[in-house]
Order: sequence, then structure tokens, then C-alpha cells
Amino acid sequence: MAETRVKSFVLRFLLAQPLTYWKLLKYIDVDIPTVQKTLKNLLRNKILEYKNNLFYLTSKGREEAKDLGISVFNSAMCPECHGKTVTLSPFKWLVKEFESLTFERPKAISEYDQGYVDSTDTVARVIFMYQLGDIEGKNIILLGDDDLTSLALLASGFPKQVTVLEIDQRILNFIEKKAALKGWNNLEVIRYDVREPLPDQFKGKYDVFLTDPVETIGGLRLFLSRCVEALKGEGSIGYFGLTHLEASRQKWWNIQKDILEMGFTITDIVRGFHTYLLERDDILNLELKVVKEAPVEIKIPEVDFYTSNLFRIYAVNSPQPLVRGKVDWQRELYYDQEAYVTCP
Amino acid sequence: MAETRVKSFVLRFLLAQPLTYWKLLKYIDVDIPTVQKTLKNLLRNKILEYKNNLFYLTSKGREEAKDLGISVFNSAMCPECHGKTVTLSPFKWLVKEFESLTFERPKAISEYDQGYVDSTDTVARVIFMYQLGDIEGKNIILLGDDDLTSLALLASGFPKQVTVLEIDQRILNFIEKKAALKGWNNLEVIRYDVREPLPDQFKGKYDVFLTDPVETIGGLRLFLSRCVEALKGEGSIGYFGLTHLEASRQKWWNIQKDILEMGFTITDIVRGFHTYLLERDDILNLELKVVKEAPVEIKIPEVDFYTSNLFRIYAVNSPQPLVRGKVDWQRELYYDQEAYVTCP
Repeated sequence: MAETRVKSFVLRFLLAQPLTYWKLLKYIDVDIPTVQKTLKNLLRNKILEYKNNLFYLTSKGREEAKDLGISVFNSAMCPECHGKTVTLSPFKWLVKEFESLTFERPKAISEYDQGYVDSTDTVARVIFMYQLGDIEGKNIILLGDDDLTSLALLASGFPKQVTVLEIDQRILNFIEKKAALKGWNNLEVIRYDVREPLPDQFKGKYDVFLTDPVETIGGLRLFLSRCVEALKGEGSIGYFGLTHLEASRQKWWNIQKDILEMGFTITDIVRGFHTYLLERDDILNLELKVVKEAPVEIKIPEVDFYTSNLFRIYAVNSPQPLVRGKVDWQRELYYDQEAYVTCP
Repeated sequence: MAETRVKSFVLRFLLAQPLTYWKLLKYIDVDIPTVQKTLKNLLRNKILEYKNNLFYLTSKGREEAKDLGISVFNSAMCPECHGKTVTLSPFKWLVKEFESLTFERPKAISEYDQGYVDSTDTVARVIFMYQLGDIEGKNIILLGDDDLTSLALLASGFPKQVTVLEIDQRILNFIEKKAALKGWNNLEVIRYDVREPLPDQFKGKYDVFLTDPVETIGGLRLFLSRCVEALKGEGSIGYFGLTHLEASRQKWWNIQKDILEMGFTITDIVRGFHTYLLERDDILNLELKVVKEAPVEIKIPEVDFYTSNLFRIYAVNSPQPLVRGKVDWQRELYYDQEAYVTCP
């Protein structure tokens, strides 16, 4: 059970050192509601204590770890790639170029479920795609691009064509301006609300899509359906991010069922690929459940705790979107019972 | 389409340097029949030429690469972990211990679809499982163990209990003897043919399974069903390997459908995690399709070309095996139309 898993992780981490609430969320691959619930139980049962913003194991907690055969965690995460499988070393110029391009990027709007991915992670995603042959000479469509991945793709010089569909005009303007400055003419940007049907000119035109969808089952189905409709056919590829924090493994199951139903197989899932640079002040101010339902009184995050996993999917048949045409969803697009870092 | 993908990969690799047939098979993530077919077409169309055991791009091939926007491949695979996400550095003692334990291991029998995984990859798999909290204090069952992963698990000191079900008595004897020498008493080994029902004493008892199944859809369903039946319930974990060489993406789709149907979600897929040390002489001698259907006359492999991907799956519901009871399968257990490195 997920609670047993949370408990084991808490024990192995805290045997090594006391940790904040935010670090525990970051390191435990279980959804926030379950982590919160387990922490409450462990505090009640005197396995844990909380002081000065840190969780500690009690002596009872240490006994418990011993009984369960759990020892001090000795992380084997690769120190070079941090578990991303690819190194940035041959592409350091691209990291620099991307950082310079995005220096004065538009501020993320938490109310719109924005919150962008760390620059090096964005470039690492592009490198990962390059490694798998999914960029060079390809037509690539991005649905939503507050991460500005389009600029990393264009700066790499590899894609044939990049199209950005995005609802936030600030982001479209920013991308367009930078591309114009650089003289890149293989970019197209269009203001688009995912609830609208995919415009005909984008249907069946792309080799690869990239999106970072909202984390509800319906929202994911909608984002992926729009993307899938833009693909050429068998052999087309999709990339997207999915978190464990706001998506339980049950939700993962539902999403994977959708993926197969749309005619895709999953070829890669890389754990913790993306770290999000959320506005830390907003976390406390926006009445988010990650704070309101916390088991203890917590402080502003001292670490970027929000991560997501990178999925790559491959069309084995002609891609079949599960949603077509206009939908009339409002707040439920962003918000479900597992949405703990999303504005209600 | 898969053939287009093979072509792009051939172009980007051969722009860098000429390669043997075996290296192309190793580096291209497409099933062998499709690679063979594409290579034949590229030779016929004078994109490629083959001399002295190597494939070269022709000048027409170079033109084609240019037209398609494909440039010399500059691999970004992580030099530290080789794409495995975990480093062996903190566990070098375990690699040494495992190599010493397995020094005189039983020779693989190609006729039984044996062929074991490189030692460091076997230890890396154990480290990966450790990293995800799936070993410490756990009851672990292995279905088939010619890789001798059980010895790596036991040597780590982390598991509570390790059970090995295996058809080859030589392997059972070897594992049992080594464990006895070391004084490990948390091991159980049982001779078991996967076609027989899972004995009652193993049902519903394990936290984690590990298997390296045969590569047919039916065979995979059978192996996974037996494993799944041994698990405790929700939150239980499975690990297995799946290749791209003898499993097309269509087959991947079928297998993933089975996984979801059995009540699991896929949490990790790590590309090229395992390299197999096949008996190189056997490759040419056993009338395998990878040789017989090759587009050119080839020599004995100069590289360990056979790799597989590591899957981790998580039970979101009570695990449901798709096959129960005895089955009466013969050669079709091992062999299907994509089995190109398996004895007919």
C-alpha cells in the first residue's frame, strides 16, 4: 500500500538526517494526500517528531526502522546526469544560449497552473529527444509552452519546423520576439485555448508533440487528444510530463489506459526528470492544499520540491484522439481531488 | 513508420563512422525484422554499401542525410551511468562480491533461451531497486534466474527473503551452493516449470517480483501471470526486462495492455538497461534468423548487441493474473514471428 511505502521512505531518509516537509514531498514518489496522511499517523504514533521546521525520527522510529530492515539511505542516483540518462556536457553551449534567450522570461502565473521547468532540465529534455532521434529534421508541435522549450529546440538548430499553441499571449509574444531577433523562420506561434477544437491546419502534420498537461485525468485526456490529432500517423512520437505529487498511481493507471487506447505504446518513463521553479511565495499565499492540509505548521519552501517524470510515447497505429471538438470545461480542467499544488 | 526511423538512425550513425551489422542492431531501437528489411532497401537504393564487414554511407547516402536534416550523431548518453540513472560508485564492493560469487557460473544454454546479463548490469538492477526502496526488508520472488540476480540481492544484505523459481537444476544448485557457503539462510530455491500452476505456498506472499521473460506475447503473459499471482496485493512491485530487438512496438503495446489489465501501472521504463552476454559462437551456429535473414554476409558478433529495457510496474489494485492453472505450450512459448535471436 502507498502508506507503507511512504513510511519506509520516511524512515530511510530520516535515519540519514532530519528533513523539512518540502524535502520529504520531493523525495517520496507518492501523491501528496497520502504523504500528508501518513506523516500525520507517524506523528500521532510517536514515530516522528517535528521541531524547528524539521522532521526527526524518535527512538521509537529508529526501533521501527530496525524491525522493518530499513537502514540509512545511501543514494545511488547518478551524480552526472541526476537520473536523466543524458549528459549536458556536449551541449553546454545550448544551456548557455537558452539561459541567455530566456533571461527576462514572463513571470509564471500560478492561477493559470503555470510554473516553469528549470532551464537545465528544459535543455536536458531537448537533448533526450535528440538522443532518441526525435528532433532532427522533424516537425514538432508544442501545446502550452511556459517552459519556453520551443526556444531551446530552435536554438539547437535541429528541428525542421516548430509550432507553439499557447493560451498566454505574453508567452507567445516573448517566443516570437526572441525568434525574430535570432532570425529563426521555422517557428509558428498561435494563441489557442485547449478547449477549442484543434484548427484544421494542424491536423495530421507533425512528427512529434511535446506538452506539459494539467494533472487531472480529463485535462490530460484533453491535452493529449489535441496533440495526438496533430500527429502524422504510425511512428509519430509524443513527449509529456507527469508528476507523482498530484497524480496517484491509480491516476497513472487511468492515463496509461488512455494512452494505449489512443494507439500509443510507452517507450520511456524517466523518473524525476523535471524540477519546477514554482513561485515560492505563492505556495504559502494561494491557499493550496499542500499547505492547508499539511500535518504541521510549515514555512515557505526552501527547495524546489515539485518534480515530474518524462514520458515518451510511440504511435503503433493511426493515433486516435479520445476527445474531439469543443469542450466546455471550466475549473475542473485544472482541479481534482489530488490537485494539492493547484489553485482551487 | 518504423522503417523511416531505422533509416534516420542509420544515416546519423554512419555519418560519424562505418559500423558492423551487430552495432547497428544494438544502437537502433527497432525490431530486427524491420532493421533487416530497411537495410536491404537502403543497399538496393545505393544509400548504403557494405564492404569488409562494415556498412558505409554512399555519396547518395550523404546527400539523403542532408536533405532530411540529419547530421553526425553526437551521443549525449551519460558517461557515468550509461543511461541507467544509478551509479555503481557507492556499491563497488557489491560488484566485486557478485563477480567473485558468479566466477564459475553455469554456461548459458542458447536452446533454452538462456543468455545472461552482464555482471555490472545485474548489480545495477539491484541498485536501481534499492534506490526505489524495493529491496530493504522485502520478500522477493524471482521467476527464472540464469542472471543469478538472487546472489546479488543476497550479497547486498538488504532483502528479508529471496525465493528463486527456475527450471534449470544446474542454476538452482549453483545458487544454493553459494548461499550455503556464505551462510545466507534467507534463500529458498525451487525447481519450477512456468507451464505448471504456481504452487499454493507462493501465492500472495511477496512484495516484489523480478523476471526476465521470454519475448512472445503469450510467454510474457504467462511469466507475468505467475509472478503477479505471487504478490501480496495493492502496492506490490514487479521488475522485468523487455527488448526492442525481438519485440516490435506493436508487441510492446500488447504487453502494456496486459500489464494494465492485471491491475498494474508502469512507473519506470529505462532504455537499454541490460546488455546480454550471449554465446557469440552460437549466434552463427544455431541457424538464428538474425543471421539467416541478414541483408549481407556477416561475421561472428564483435560486440554484445543484445540489450533490453528495464520495466518497473506497481499494483494499483489487487493483482489479477491473466493465466491461471496449467498450460500445455511447447515451442510457441519461446518462439513467434519476431523471435530472431531465439532457436526455432
